[in-house]
Amino acid sequence: MKKIDLNCDMGESFGHYKIGLDDEVIKYVTSANIGCGFHGGDPLVMRKTVKIAKENGVGIGAHPGFPDLMGFGRRKMDVTPEEIKNYVLYQIGSLYAFAKAEGEKLQHIKPHGALYNAMVNDERLSRAVMEGIAEFDKELIVLGLAGSKVINIAEETGLKVASEAFADRAYNPDGTLVSRRLPNAVITNPQEVLSRVIRMTKEEKIECINGEIIERKIDTICVHGDSPGAVESVKVIRQGLEKEGIPALPMKRFL
Amino acid sequence: MKKIDLNCDMGESFGHYKIGLDDEVIKYVTSANIGCGFHGGDPLVMRKTVKIAKENGVGIGAHPGFPDLMGFGRRKMDVTPEEIKNYVLYQIGSLYAFAKAEGEKLQHIKPHGALYNAMVNDERLSRAVMEGIAEFDKELIVLGLAGSKVINIAEETGLKVASEAFADRAYNPDGTLVSRRLPNAVITNPQEVLSRVIRMTKEEKIECINGEIIERKIDTICVHGDSPGAVESVKVIRQGLEKEGIPALPMKRFL
Amino acid sequence: MKKIDLNCDMGESFGHYKIGLDDEVIKYVTSANIGCGFHGGDPLVMRKTVKIAKENGVGIGAHPGFPDLMGFGRRKMDVTPEEIKNYVLYQIGSLYAFAKAEGEKLQHIKPHGALYNAMVNDERLSRAVMEGIAEFDKELIVLGLAGSKVINIAEETGLKVASEAFADRAYNPDGTLVSRRLPNAVITNPQEVLSRVIRMTKEEKIECINGEIIERKIDTICVHGDSPGAVESVKVIRQGLEKEGIPALPMKRFL
Amino acid sequence: MKKIDLNCDMGESFGHYKIGLDDEVIKYVTSANIGCGFHGGDPLVMRKTVKIAKENGVGIGAHPGFPDLMGFGRRKMDVTPEEIKNYVLYQIGSLYAFAKAEGEKLQHIKPHGALYNAMVNDERLSRAVMEGIAEFDKELIVLGLAGSKVINIAEETGLKVASEAFADRAYNPDGTLVSRRLPNAVITNPQEVLSRVIRMTKEEKIECINGEIIERKIDTICVHGDSPGAVESVKVIRQGLEKEGIPALPMKRFL
Repeated sequence: MKKIDLNCDMGESFGHYKIGLDDEVIKYVTSANIGCGFHGGDPLVMRKTVKIAKENGVGIGAHPGFPDLMGFGRRKMDVTPEEIKNYVLYQIGSLYAFAKAEGEKLQHIKPHGALYNAMVNDERLSRAVMEGIAEFDKELIVLGLAGSKVINIAEETGLKVASEAFADRAYNPDGTLVSRRLPNAVITNPQEVLSRVIRMTKEEKIECINGEIIERKIDTICVHGDSPGAVESVKVIRQGLEKEGIPALPMKRFL
Repeated sequence: MKKIDLNCDMGESFGHYKIGLDDEVIKYVTSANIGCGFHGGDPLVMRKTVKIAKENGVGIGAHPGFPDLMGFGRRKMDVTPEEIKNYVLYQIGSLYAFAKAEGEKLQHIKPHGALYNAMVNDERLSRAVMEGIAEFDKELIVLGLAGSKVINIAEETGLKVASEAFADRAYNPDGTLVSRRLPNAVITNPQEVLSRVIRMTKEEKIECINGEIIERKIDTICVHGDSPGAVESVKVIRQGLEKEGIPALPMKRFL
Repeated sequence: MKKIDLNCDMGESFGHYKIGLDDEVIKYVTSANIGCGFHGGDPLVMRKTVKIAKENGVGIGAHPGFPDLMGFGRRKMDVTPEEIKNYVLYQIGSLYAFAKAEGEKLQHIKPHGALYNAMVNDERLSRAVMEGIAEFDKELIVLGLAGSKVINIAEETGLKVASEAFADRAYNPDGTLVSRRLPNAVITNPQEVLSRVIRMTKEEKIECINGEIIERKIDTICVHGDSPGAVESVKVIRQGLEKEGIPALPMKRFL
Repeated sequence: MKKIDLNCDMGESFGHYKIGLDDEVIKYVTSANIGCGFHGGDPLVMRKTVKIAKENGVGIGAHPGFPDLMGFGRRKMDVTPEEIKNYVLYQIGSLYAFAKAEGEKLQHIKPHGALYNAMVNDERLSRAVMEGIAEFDKELIVLGLAGSKVINIAEETGLKVASEAFADRAYNPDGTLVSRRLPNAVITNPQEVLSRVIRMTKEEKIECINGEIIERKIDTICVHGDSPGAVESVKVIRQGLEKEGIPALPMKRFL
């Protein structure tokens, strides 16, 4: 029986600044990607997010990004492999502390924003990130874009890997995401999102923006909790999966 | 036979900015207090400092501070206990990652600068720091000013503790340090520093600025590596201890 | 005829993080205190806030704070007079650039959060801030707590000064604000807030938390725009002042 | 008679971190590019650097960079034109405050590090920087790589411009600098540097790494003060120019 993980970015608030409806969306997801202070997140936010993940049986993951709070980690920075490897290590360690304080373990790592995107096309960067993760703990599961080289590089580095698809994003026929700058990059109709998610899960197929169908191994689906509408959509997805009899579980339970 | 630890702040460089002669002073000390990025230090610096500590058989410790890079953590900030507890956890975790990547363990924690000083007088702050450390790992040794309440609070929290004296700093009769803003706060003559260190070690006695002698249990002595003169002084101390037959060892070896 | 200014903190968003309903509240206030990047605000936010102030005929002011984004400038930092003087200069200059780019002039300076509060009790700090402002431009109006020493120090430094009262905050009989940590520190009923504002404006009297009435010269009243309720309250204040025939104007128009 | 300006990066220290021998090199240069806090520099450092520039009759310029203190502004960041325009404005304004406090005017703007380099190849970025400068003050002189499009874009924006050559850097035949990652990118022999500077000044010719000679209009030559050797080299250049009877002057004196 096919199982699926639902992952969501969380813990990206900072000090007095709040972002994301974490307390709501945590009820419907199975894995949380928690900001580690470089692009978002601070020690109090991280602690609180680890706590609510624990309370909801949600897998705890680090969400390392570029050191660019002002740009929310969404701007590529020309870092060296040595730099990014150690930036990733630093961020994983910082989240590990809160997991340990709460008696929990880290489940996974999902690079954030511009780092995630840059890794798809930059093998050297990707390899450096994987080395950083592996130096910390080879049992950690790393998330990468389904069908991309990131998956292979993770495996070559000896890491467990989860192939990821995006619930509400349009796809190019090569399996990359349609840029947010282009029209129709984001799918907003919850029912359409749900039917895409079910197809991704049951058939491992994604319909691209030109109508073409591509096949991808899919272990986890990325959802969002940054608006009331987004949370509602995640609720619809979770309930829809249940109706289909597809178990949504933290990825460590089946990978 | 009395044993002593020599601890030194290290890994406080940041990006293009270099501070401290770490590669030199590492040869003569037994424990390194490594900046964790809040007041000084960055991921590359932390990695490198852990490496040279490992190569020199030096104990690896976290040196958490206030989040004030511009003030080098030397300005008191009115943080809440909840904030400082989690700031300390974050910083310990970040260094833990580099220790783990290098196959090493954390030995100790030494709060930095204004945080260290504020803890001497602020019991609530002190307790919050200790709780953060204990939540991470109760086997960690925490450094506190010899004879101060910090020592008691650490013990009450169930932590191992190392009583610390300062090699080159003048003391008030109550066992606190003479403020750097006052004359003669820092002792610069290496031979005088050495004889103070030997007295601290063999007799557990400190001569105060008014000539009074106070007794303190002393496990570790703080030395500095931020100038060629300071490094030379540490070399004199290490050699002087050897001549006296006093073993200088990482604190975990005898605490 | 008594005239009054209504000032409001604005432009405190940062990067992807939004705070405050600036676009709404700008319609009802007469002066904007704009974050300058130390406790909140970034270059894009500053530019945008200057623009909407200009469009709404609202006076443009710098809102300098401690360099503590994580604490939103609400935590006292033990800075030296030399440090704070230059921190203030830096922040004023940064806002000046956006005012100049939009063909506008700076009207005023209002220190933010913990800096504002610390100045009430710390004459040395207060004097340093005033010197920084005066070194930039003696025509700038500085805001200070009505009846406090801050007002005198500003005048002694040769600056124009606006005495400030707070619309929705309870007062101690000495004219200081009741700490936010105490019950009833904030007055939430819009009609009660309005009647206090009118009394402050027409009679220059403030009813304290113990019922005592104190007299204060009042030039500007601080209002808030950080929630829909707060904005509604400001709207009620502005309309209430109009009904009373009290002109609400940018402070430069009558000081 | 040909006149030349000697410009040098300064004021890039930060808090407790010192970089550059500003007090030494200021004696031999005619224009100072002063860090504004994004890649280096802080309010105290900026104030002090403006002061020594004033004392030595050196032209005061802003040295804006990417918001990347950890990378010292040497890593390209994918910022939007809107972002960089306002980042530049913010930084110019901050330095303007210190110039004003010292009774001085800003003379010039020199973009820093990765921003300077990116502008050579990215017309959109270049144009955004120029717009930011022009919005502040069209009388400011902007520095750009001699012979590059940056010069034309500055002129099209209505700015004054200074064509810059580098004293100690090897050139490619297209007039760009040989990357620091390649061998012989930096010329270290002071006499060789001097003879290149004199040729640049008197003949407006640069010998490239392959021996080819290119002609470039040159108004200002970039020198360095980040090591005792560098300062010595600048001294040699200044004295060599004097011997040749070539006046070294702040660029505003002849542009």
